Amino acid sequence: MSLLTVGSVAFDAIETPFGKTDKIIGGAGSYIALASSFFTDNQKLVSVVGEDFPQEFLDLLKSRNIDLEGLQIKKGEKTFFWSGKYHNDMNTRDTLITELNVLEHFDPIIPESYQDVDYLMLGNLSPQVQSTVIERLKKRPKFIAMDTMNFWMDIALADLKKTISMVDILIINDEEARQLSKEYSLVKAYKVIREMGPEFLIIKKGEHGALLFHEDKVFFAPALPLEDVFDPTGAGDTFAGGFIGYLASTDDISFENMKRAIINGSALASFCCEKFGTERLLEVTQGDLDQRISEFVTLTNFDLVQTIK
Amino acid sequence: MSLLTVGSVAFDAIETPFGKTDKIIGGAGSYIALASSFFTDNQKLVSVVGEDFPQEFLDLLKSRNIDLEGLQIKKGEKTFFWSGKYHNDMNTRDTLITELNVLEHFDPIIPESYQDVDYLMLGNLSPQVQSTVIERLKKRPKFIAMDTMNFWMDIALADLKKTISMVDILIINDEEARQLSKEYSLVKAYKVIREMGPEFLIIKKGEHGALLFHEDKVFFAPALPLEDVFDPTGAGDTFAGGFIGYLASTDDISFENMKRAIINGSALASFCCEKFGTERLLEVTQGDLDQRISEFVTLTNFDLVQTIK
Repeated sequence: MSLLTVGSVAFDAIETPFGKTDKIIGGAGSYIALASSFFTDNQKLVSVVGEDFPQEFLDLLKSRNIDLEGLQIKKGEKTFFWSGKYHNDMNTRDTLITELNVLEHFDPIIPESYQDVDYLMLGNLSPQVQSTVIERLKKRPKFIAMDTMNFWMDIALADLKKTISMVDILIINDEEARQLSKEYSLVKAYKVIREMGPEFLIIKKGEHGALLFHEDKVFFAPALPLEDVFDPTGAGDTFAGGFIGYLASTDDISFENMKRAIINGSALASFCCEKFGTERLLEVTQGDLDQRISEFVTLTNFDLVQTIK
Repeated sequence: MSLLTVGSVAFDAIETPFGKTDKIIGGAGSYIALASSFFTDNQKLVSVVGEDFPQEFLDLLKSRNIDLEGLQIKKGEKTFFWSGKYHNDMNTRDTLITELNVLEHFDPIIPESYQDVDYLMLGNLSPQVQSTVIERLKKRPKFIAMDTMNFWMDIALADLKKTISMVDILIINDEEARQLSKEYSLVKAYKVIREMGPEFLIIKKGEHGALLFHEDKVFFAPALPLEDVFDPTGAGDTFAGGFIGYLASTDDISFENMKRAIINGSALASFCCEKFGTERLLEVTQGDLDQRISEFVTLTNFDLVQTIK
């Protein structure tokens, strides 16, 4: 089935306790598209970059069968740029620079050839841009997934709630779920967020894994314990991309299949943390991914064969 | 197989956002013994209480086949008392009162009938008391498990390292593992702690579950997502008690069986959080426990039946 990904394609500059980068490729759209491309060769991208963006990376996306007709290249403008520095625990970071550039007035134009997409993944962007994409699709996709962040809860909560009401699954982290629901318990947070519209909720907990909620069901996927988290930038987007790419390629939105999608997304996200930016993701082979998934199985598998007294 | 549990039997007074208690029964030894008693009826306790401790609770322990010959009742002295207040997130707490009382000069006397125990669980106590117990057993138990806390890392690190070198498994939380190993990554923390002696390490992560490490193997057990954590006091001890009780009753210290032991311990710990102190644990039936364990299976079970593209 076809997948439409909407998200930023951008430059990042990252500093971690392990080192720092110059401007490298980043953006939610980049990570999602790369991750999805492990599963689907029927992906379309809506995004915007400036004239300064390297053709080389766009060619790379094309080589992974990502349709770029909906990627706007703005003459005379600059690409979105974010710079951040991670603290020693790698769980918190400071934003050093945010240059919106082309994102400031981003109007997500949907090419005619993108109409009739089956799956839609809305990467973290202004909720107004996200809802515009849904409204511009003449036929509602079969399944709409959405990421967001606390920034939009702070400055655009009404817009955000409107967009949330239009999607099937929200994919956010634990801190965001708590802020959005005003509940500390993640079980209660799901109940509040379900009332906002989405039937499914994924709560990402970084090194502690992820939870999938649907009706009265919950699934807990671990994160692979890593010796070093070299650079977590993009891990959440990679997770989301692997998740939606897997769903679109299997065209099965049952709870059971979503579990598989989460395991696949988690496996890809674990690679993402091993090097700066998209570097590690670009090296990963299908064999690497299969091997990593088998590590997830080993990590969580137990057998209650000995009966309890 | 026989199990010897060493740990405090005490009074707690607890305040949480949900309410507060007067003096109720607490102490690592109480929680461990109660949890173990779900699996083994061959358990012996070494501990100490004052004259003020209620016979009723001792009778309850006896009714669960816990041998109290090694429980010292100090005439004219008072039982250990701890009082604490949990913050709104239930993950952090302030100690309001600590009265060591009988614990201040606790000399763990091992009755002759306790010699030849097969499994030993050392609840959180001074590492000097813990190592004394091991030294006073004429035959080393088949398997020794040990809990501790950051307090001993701060004030008695040399004693603590000596005791750690004598045990088979250390059961601590993530913060303690990081402090003890001076490594943030839990994978690296295990490598450091393994060099201190224990072949196995369990790292408890509270609401995020627990990790079991052995050689190059790792197992991740989730915690059941709870709507409310009413009172987490004793959950870690309950987990440890369920774990060691399961191992002792099955007499199988393979990695595979330890996974089962962790699932059983986690299930019991999830009950512990539902009411104040030991209250909920005392209500739990075998049927409740079986039901809760089946929820753990549902929570983590996935099937990679659809092959990835």
